[in-house]
Amino acid sequence: MSKIFWSPGLEQLEPYTPGEQPESKTLIKLNTNENPYPASPQALGLLKQYDFSDALRRYPDPESRELRRAIADKHKLTPEQVFVGNGSDEVLALSFYSFFRRREPLLFPDITYSFYPVYCQLFDIESRKIPLARDFSVQLQDYSAPAAGVIIPNPNAPTGRYLPLDEIEALLECQPQRVVIVDEAYIDFGGDSAITLINRYPNLLVIHTLSKSYALAGLRLGFAMGQKHLIQGLLRAKNSFNSYPIDAVAQRVATAAIRDTAWHADNCGKVIATRKRCEQTLAEIGFEVVPSQANFLLVKPPQPGAEAFNQALRKRDILVRYFNQPRISEYLRISIGTDAEMDQLIRNCKEILASQS
Amino acid sequence: MSKIFWSPGLEQLEPYTPGEQPESKTLIKLNTNENPYPASPQALGLLKQYDFSDALRRYPDPESRELRRAIADKHKLTPEQVFVGNGSDEVLALSFYSFFRRREPLLFPDITYSFYPVYCQLFDIESRKIPLARDFSVQLQDYSAPAAGVIIPNPNAPTGRYLPLDEIEALLECQPQRVVIVDEAYIDFGGDSAITLINRYPNLLVIHTLSKSYALAGLRLGFAMGQKHLIQGLLRAKNSFNSYPIDAVAQRVATAAIRDTAWHADNCGKVIATRKRCEQTLAEIGFEVVPSQANFLLVKPPQPGAEAFNQALRKRDILVRYFNQPRISEYLRISIGTDAEMDQLIRNCKEILASQS
Repeated sequence: MSKIFWSPGLEQLEPYTPGEQPESKTLIKLNTNENPYPASPQALGLLKQYDFSDALRRYPDPESRELRRAIADKHKLTPEQVFVGNGSDEVLALSFYSFFRRREPLLFPDITYSFYPVYCQLFDIESRKIPLARDFSVQLQDYSAPAAGVIIPNPNAPTGRYLPLDEIEALLECQPQRVVIVDEAYIDFGGDSAITLINRYPNLLVIHTLSKSYALAGLRLGFAMGQKHLIQGLLRAKNSFNSYPIDAVAQRVATAAIRDTAWHADNCGKVIATRKRCEQTLAEIGFEVVPSQANFLLVKPPQPGAEAFNQALRKRDILVRYFNQPRISEYLRISIGTDAEMDQLIRNCKEILASQS
Repeated sequence: MSKIFWSPGLEQLEPYTPGEQPESKTLIKLNTNENPYPASPQALGLLKQYDFSDALRRYPDPESRELRRAIADKHKLTPEQVFVGNGSDEVLALSFYSFFRRREPLLFPDITYSFYPVYCQLFDIESRKIPLARDFSVQLQDYSAPAAGVIIPNPNAPTGRYLPLDEIEALLECQPQRVVIVDEAYIDFGGDSAITLINRYPNLLVIHTLSKSYALAGLRLGFAMGQKHLIQGLLRAKNSFNSYPIDAVAQRVATAAIRDTAWHADNCGKVIATRKRCEQTLAEIGFEVVPSQANFLLVKPPQPGAEAFNQALRKRDILVRYFNQPRISEYLRISIGTDAEMDQLIRNCKEILASQS
């Protein structure tokens, strides 16, 4: 019975699997790269102070003008260079539709955000995975082939490896006729953003999210920045899919969060300091640690293997992320929590290692 | 320069044009079928009472389990028969993708929600418009041709005309191998919902929204109900597009709104009473009024023509919706406001008519 009603091809889709969101409050949750601190009090305070009854009764601003203005102000762009969506996943999906449905394949690294191949299936886009080097660095010379475009996270996920801006420029020059998306979900934790290149490169689209450095994963807000002709392409797809993707509450909370630059700088500083401390300690107790500019670490436990280590942490109520896939099946991705959480993680790691010997 | 970066075909899309959302507070806004009353105090109160800092820091439940349970409870379904999305527009878009990408054309009435042909363009779906009768009623016999499926709003928009359930059943029987979507955005204002047919018809998908009868257009929440195999198809598309479409605030506010059945019944009763009174008064002063079971009226002013009448109302700070399209270009769609707003509308209509004679 069931599938006769589905569009042909729907059954072949292999949807994205998000990290687990357990309801338990006692777990130490280091599996989905959430920020360990509550969001800007300016943003959270709005929920209590503002009277939303009229804003919720009416349709929201379909163009999210105030929010786009706040983003433009912060990043020294114009509002016409900013596109907002219901999480950066929606922004990515609409970008794939708007720019990459071409005869040539889309290029991205072989280890990267696992939603990219899913969007390709959804919109019938061919793709080609370009292998990273052994140390997970990007091999730029491989990105010059005829292509529908390029998408690359910087820092990369789940490796945490960061590409400096001159290498991003080299990538933009590999594909002058095609859109190059730099997915900067983790850029605020130590990298230089490609936003400063936007006015020089008509093919550059930079994507950010409020889920990581703004501590608002629950709000679902992502945005793209690029020259006006790219934003207009995105608007065309968005207005053919969903006119009002950002609700009235999210528009206001996100605007306040973006404008609270002091909170943001302070939060990123704290996460970076914890990461550095943790990176060092894990290396000291025998982990191989991939250099990270993100709010997570990709690490290889000295023993008993990543999958078993993951299970052992799980038994101790600590959730990290294990990817059962080629090249990283011996690694764990650990999100940066509070100092107290990371202390507990490290104590437990030591105990697991001790129990092996 | 600009469009060389766009996917082929993007330029040909003709996006949906939403009704105007002016910032002015002095306008009487009867143009987008919003509810004139604030939403359930149980729902709005949550924003003040609940501490969202942890819920917003984390990713929301990707499956919106509590919300789906509330909807299932209210409509005597199981949660597996409920799909939620970021507004019913997103639910519609994903439904078109999941069920209607076939060789045959999708069928819908020639006067209907103007987003349907846009989704068809977006996903490369052919469509065929089936003319309504002169009185805007649906001609059932025309829906038996080989088709990708059928979509029909009930009550229809922008006509307001309602199809009784036996005619919906006849439509379901026209296309036993194809999905028939009944888009019930306006059903709570006087019609019988097709939800009661779900367990008997494996091809029926019913779509509802919180934008109209729940007074939460600003929250962006819509849902689909149907047998489990249809919901699973939708989930496959959704999880290939955006894993977390419903934010943590919207999940909680929507759940409270759905559970406040007393507020909902009372609100619908008030809107229906105002509509009936207004229907009668407009007919008395010479308007032709299409029978409506929705929260709006499609009316033909006796003079000086709909477009001029629309302009005259606009000058008097009253916004209604004029569609410059075949068959309804002599009509105006007027949303039902509060009694006071409708009194002002009627007083202004009388003055405009008097100024013509």
